[in-house]
Amino acid sequence: MERKLYDDTHEQYRETVRTFLQKEVVPYHESWEADRWIDRTVFARAAGHGIYGLQIPEAYGGAGEQDYRFRMVAAEEIAKAHTISFAVTIALQDDLVLHYLLDLTTEEQRLRWLPGIARGELIGALAMSEPGAGSDLRGIRTTARRDGDEWILNGQKTFISSGIMADLAIVAARTDPDAGSNGYSLFVVEKDMPGFRRGRKLDKIGLPAQDTAELYFDDVRVPSGNLLGVEGRGLQHLMSHLPRERLGVTVKSLANCRAVFDVTRQYCAERQAFGRSIAEFQHVRFELAEMATEIDVAQAYVDDSVRAYNAGELTAVDAAKGKWYVSELQKRIMDRCLQLHGGYGYMTEYAVARAFVDTRVQTIYGGTTEIMKELIGRDLVG
Amino acid sequence: MERKLYDDTHEQYRETVRTFLQKEVVPYHESWEADRWIDRTVFARAAGHGIYGLQIPEAYGGAGEQDYRFRMVAAEEIAKAHTISFAVTIALQDDLVLHYLLDLTTEEQRLRWLPGIARGELIGALAMSEPGAGSDLRGIRTTARRDGDEWILNGQKTFISSGIMADLAIVAARTDPDAGSNGYSLFVVEKDMPGFRRGRKLDKIGLPAQDTAELYFDDVRVPSGNLLGVEGRGLQHLMSHLPRERLGVTVKSLANCRAVFDVTRQYCAERQAFGRSIAEFQHVRFELAEMATEIDVAQAYVDDSVRAYNAGELTAVDAAKGKWYVSELQKRIMDRCLQLHGGYGYMTEYAVARAFVDTRVQTIYGGTTEIMKELIGRDLVG
Amino acid sequence: MERKLYDDTHEQYRETVRTFLQKEVVPYHESWEADRWIDRTVFARAAGHGIYGLQIPEAYGGAGEQDYRFRMVAAEEIAKAHTISFAVTIALQDDLVLHYLLDLTTEEQRLRWLPGIARGELIGALAMSEPGAGSDLRGIRTTARRDGDEWILNGQKTFISSGIMADLAIVAARTDPDAGSNGYSLFVVEKDMPGFRRGRKLDKIGLPAQDTAELYFDDVRVPSGNLLGVEGRGLQHLMSHLPRERLGVTVKSLANCRAVFDVTRQYCAERQAFGRSIAEFQHVRFELAEMATEIDVAQAYVDDSVRAYNAGELTAVDAAKGKWYVSELQKRIMDRCLQLHGGYGYMTEYAVARAFVDTRVQTIYGGTTEIMKELIGRDLVG
Amino acid sequence: MERKLYDDTHEQYRETVRTFLQKEVVPYHESWEADRWIDRTVFARAAGHGIYGLQIPEAYGGAGEQDYRFRMVAAEEIAKAHTISFAVTIALQDDLVLHYLLDLTTEEQRLRWLPGIARGELIGALAMSEPGAGSDLRGIRTTARRDGDEWILNGQKTFISSGIMADLAIVAARTDPDAGSNGYSLFVVEKDMPGFRRGRKLDKIGLPAQDTAELYFDDVRVPSGNLLGVEGRGLQHLMSHLPRERLGVTVKSLANCRAVFDVTRQYCAERQAFGRSIAEFQHVRFELAEMATEIDVAQAYVDDSVRAYNAGELTAVDAAKGKWYVSELQKRIMDRCLQLHGGYGYMTEYAVARAFVDTRVQTIYGGTTEIMKELIGRDLVG
Repeated sequence: MERKLYDDTHEQYRETVRTFLQKEVVPYHESWEADRWIDRTVFARAAGHGIYGLQIPEAYGGAGEQDYRFRMVAAEEIAKAHTISFAVTIALQDDLVLHYLLDLTTEEQRLRWLPGIARGELIGALAMSEPGAGSDLRGIRTTARRDGDEWILNGQKTFISSGIMADLAIVAARTDPDAGSNGYSLFVVEKDMPGFRRGRKLDKIGLPAQDTAELYFDDVRVPSGNLLGVEGRGLQHLMSHLPRERLGVTVKSLANCRAVFDVTRQYCAERQAFGRSIAEFQHVRFELAEMATEIDVAQAYVDDSVRAYNAGELTAVDAAKGKWYVSELQKRIMDRCLQLHGGYGYMTEYAVARAFVDTRVQTIYGGTTEIMKELIGRDLVG
Repeated sequence: MERKLYDDTHEQYRETVRTFLQKEVVPYHESWEADRWIDRTVFARAAGHGIYGLQIPEAYGGAGEQDYRFRMVAAEEIAKAHTISFAVTIALQDDLVLHYLLDLTTEEQRLRWLPGIARGELIGALAMSEPGAGSDLRGIRTTARRDGDEWILNGQKTFISSGIMADLAIVAARTDPDAGSNGYSLFVVEKDMPGFRRGRKLDKIGLPAQDTAELYFDDVRVPSGNLLGVEGRGLQHLMSHLPRERLGVTVKSLANCRAVFDVTRQYCAERQAFGRSIAEFQHVRFELAEMATEIDVAQAYVDDSVRAYNAGELTAVDAAKGKWYVSELQKRIMDRCLQLHGGYGYMTEYAVARAFVDTRVQTIYGGTTEIMKELIGRDLVG
Repeated sequence: MERKLYDDTHEQYRETVRTFLQKEVVPYHESWEADRWIDRTVFARAAGHGIYGLQIPEAYGGAGEQDYRFRMVAAEEIAKAHTISFAVTIALQDDLVLHYLLDLTTEEQRLRWLPGIARGELIGALAMSEPGAGSDLRGIRTTARRDGDEWILNGQKTFISSGIMADLAIVAARTDPDAGSNGYSLFVVEKDMPGFRRGRKLDKIGLPAQDTAELYFDDVRVPSGNLLGVEGRGLQHLMSHLPRERLGVTVKSLANCRAVFDVTRQYCAERQAFGRSIAEFQHVRFELAEMATEIDVAQAYVDDSVRAYNAGELTAVDAAKGKWYVSELQKRIMDRCLQLHGGYGYMTEYAVARAFVDTRVQTIYGGTTEIMKELIGRDLVG
Repeated sequence: MERKLYDDTHEQYRETVRTFLQKEVVPYHESWEADRWIDRTVFARAAGHGIYGLQIPEAYGGAGEQDYRFRMVAAEEIAKAHTISFAVTIALQDDLVLHYLLDLTTEEQRLRWLPGIARGELIGALAMSEPGAGSDLRGIRTTARRDGDEWILNGQKTFISSGIMADLAIVAARTDPDAGSNGYSLFVVEKDMPGFRRGRKLDKIGLPAQDTAELYFDDVRVPSGNLLGVEGRGLQHLMSHLPRERLGVTVKSLANCRAVFDVTRQYCAERQAFGRSIAEFQHVRFELAEMATEIDVAQAYVDDSVRAYNAGELTAVDAAKGKWYVSELQKRIMDRCLQLHGGYGYMTEYAVARAFVDTRVQTIYGGTTEIMKELIGRDLVG
């Protein structure tokens, strides 16, 4: 069905994004993948073109644009460019880091950090996961104890997206071991603080250009002014930001489905076997019909989610539904599209092959499928 | 997500439907099932309460209400009453028969038939399928040859819903064997026309109260005034009405999913095993979470389909996507809900058991899942 | 692959079974279904032809044949005759009732009951399930308290197969409320014992001729001589007989898959649409290919299970694997075969339609799929 | 169930393989993956230990062992070592190349090539696929035309396993454009023949150490003595060797399922979340139970396939059933096991992550799932 989500402004923005990508991302992405590193100057150019950081208020150098549909347009165009490492890296800033810095900061903090982000010069990371605590936030062992006007931070984080590149890391730590779920706080750790050390850049099966790393904190002295939000409310802060993070994953997953489906449909129309286009085989036609349907059905839900988010009405449960459903759909779409490519689907030079490996993490990060189902299930049977 | 489809008018109508069902349908439905026959006087009462025939223009005794959302409200409430034989029987009039009689008729025909339908006294059937022609309309062998001011109709139909009860049957017949797809026409055959004979009332695994029958036509002389639409355009008339028929199946399927899901969720919360509510088992919680998600995701698409239909924009392809997807979803939901009921799920007294058998035909009639995929697939790779 | 399970003796027995079915079952099964009752004289004829009770030792009037392959041959032939109510009814005796009476009885008891069973005159039932205790045997509330040389039995059972027809019922009851899982015992309750009352014959969505009933026990005085097995070991006795029960369900499920697949393949070869056999459509061919493969793969496991059972090596876990896997496969096969029949698949006169409803209980009785997975899962992570 | 396939000899051989792998493969595999190249001297060591080439007759330096169970033992142990690039590379020799050289050669050819293979010094490749001909062998465009005592070969091949490493390539070429399926022949092209050129080593999403390449043939003059089998019978030769190739894929796929399942089960038992082992969550237990069942069920079929192969009875259809079924099972198992690992499942250092990407090609090469279903489907509805 024709989507009714966008108006002309969004379609004009789509052109801007497309032009930017063709000029500044597509020509370099393959070499970024080979280097396992995204040239960070692209962030400044992206910020300059309004590709990210749109929601930063004008007072701090941004456009003050809250409408999530612009983010969705960007996600769709980046997906069409098949530059998933870039997509994930930039979304981390827009859907996570920036969101924390906008919502939980004091004016002093905003003035300190937001202009740099608005210029694309400052890059952040969100350091929640630990070797023994993935989905289970209460398993966090990193600690921060107060020492005068500072906090002394000790611990280890892993699976931290942009962990190597980040200039500042939002770190979740236990600040009161006796306070249960009210004993966690968030801190902004900056790159040159003594004791803050990057560990291994982790080797993943996909997303080669995107950096994922271990971080170590050994007696890092964090000034009180870098406490983010309310002391003791760290878990609550994390939880209140999950819906947007999950919406971000959902939107990217579906954009990716459509982009890969489109190249696959094209491939099937062109590829010849047994004397005809493979799209003339009923099985192939059914595969395409099923995928087209599933994508359109999901799109209706995702578009509604974006409307709800814009209206401040997207619940944690509704975001969780979209997150697991669309990321699992994505797995099926990637797998089927790869299969339709035959041997070419296994070759890295084909977009579908890269997408297959790049997207496999979508059902895991931002809350696994299993955690989403728990959350939804508990809501149902309360 | 909160649905934004309805306004207050629809919710008021919902109350009307609910009251009607509690008074006029629910107390009798079990005996209708046992009798394998719906008391046809219920149609007059339904018409009187505006439960069906709403779209008939006021000039012919109806309310002239085109908004499909009223139909959807009715479908949802009938589903909640778990009276599926009634649901299917009444939908046949509203989504199929009436629609043909509104769109393809002359003023004379409208004056002849619509008031009876508006009063719930006249019941119709649509006679397309034949023993050798189900999804494949070009396989129709029933013929009509012109003889003066009459047509002489010969042939046999099968799987005709309300075939026994119907006062008039819209019959597709071949009128010109040499004209290919332009050689079919539609006729209204009335119950007392000589040579029109009902065959067996077919024994189905579900929908016991709903009558499905064979019809025979032996030299039935049909007056020219009973030709429906344009001579030779029968196939095109059938095809142009398929989107509404399919939307009707889609809407009913999803309403049924939600109704059965709701009783199942309730059952799981109450049923005890191993010393606790079965909803406390993670597997059960995940089953519920998955179904709740899938229903909500589909709802977004179906609500958009209703909006598109109201706006005259629902394409055949979009209707086909909804039809196969939601009816297949329904199969999965019925099956999983039955399983969650354990042994009770196999007992006819439980709503889920009846729904399991009553709905199994949804992926078949109104165009099978396979036909839907062909239609969508060809559109994609055209 | 060619199965290597059988030798000539089994194939000769197959002929015997086939002849018996054609003469004594097939001509009557439809009327049994309509009557919702199997003529019990067929049991005597079945026993006379060696169709059941083969494993009864010669001393009690049987053939003393322990080889389970004969049971499997019978299951396969009954499946091919599409007489599932009969299949389930007779399997109850062979795979459950008789097995308890062979294993847990004293010589006096064997002399009392086995000859009647061997002649097909005595029919038994197994009364485990209660309204509040299905898979959860520890939820049994039926009690038996000792009173001199008798036990006084009180309680209610439900979902009891052949509950109306049975001359004797093996009833599980709590005999010591303080003994935990060692506080249950089994009793043989005979039809004319005062206080033993049949409740409703339950109305199911399938298996119409097979009777499933509620049983009531009000102060039934059961003589000590009707205690089955060891007092207090009732749960253990039940559990030790589950593998055979489950193997029985597995074998019947797979036999049914193959029988329904075969008629479906035939149907697809013969049914014409769009000018050709529907088997010429790639989708149909793939459906058939997938089902044929899945049936053959499962057959290899089931044949191995039968070999293991014959060798006394079939573990509870291996029986559970077969039970859930094959009964779930059966659901998929029935559903797909029904769909391939189009509208005919919904008509009771077609074998596939009846099989669809008759077999839906297979994933539920004899231990639900969920219970099987728990059992297997615990064994894995113990 | 306990497998009954092996006897003591096979278990002793298992020890030999295990020792070899621990000493000669496991310590180096990671560096081979990093180098994207397997050190070819390992083949000599493997041959020396009887790890491959067992079936070569003693007259040519082998052990003359035809029993396929030894191959299966090797596949199982290599899978347990999680060295899939090595597995695939060595299987190419054993299941494909060697088999052609054993079956289709003259005594002169055998004496020329087999001793080198038996010593692990000579490595072969099978060059069938072309850019425009994957599953569709009739699409082969490479040509060979006779010129006196030589053939002049021209064309291009792609997706050739071990294409870079191979000392000799078995090349399918069209030798008579007018002879339809009797117009293809096989040739052994040797590495130093002028005009034989290696193209790109293809970059795949998995199997990094395994080389897959393009090959070019520009007026390569192949002596008549290098014609393999009968002129004009190339397609038939290829087809007659497919069952063994497919059995090889099947066996490796299942061995891999079990190996990855085992590490996953271990991981679930050890991994803590929310204060307990994740195996204590019902969802995880069900996942493990389902996978354990599916693997065991498939194993029964695969073990029967090996018995049938040893007996010379494995049909093309039965091999096709195993091939698609088990390779598709493998995809599901890899995906589910990866998911159970959470974030670690995406990290290359985990066996499950590598297996996920390494095995994705199994449903594609050796005949895609779709081709298998066509083959089976045609056999069913012939």
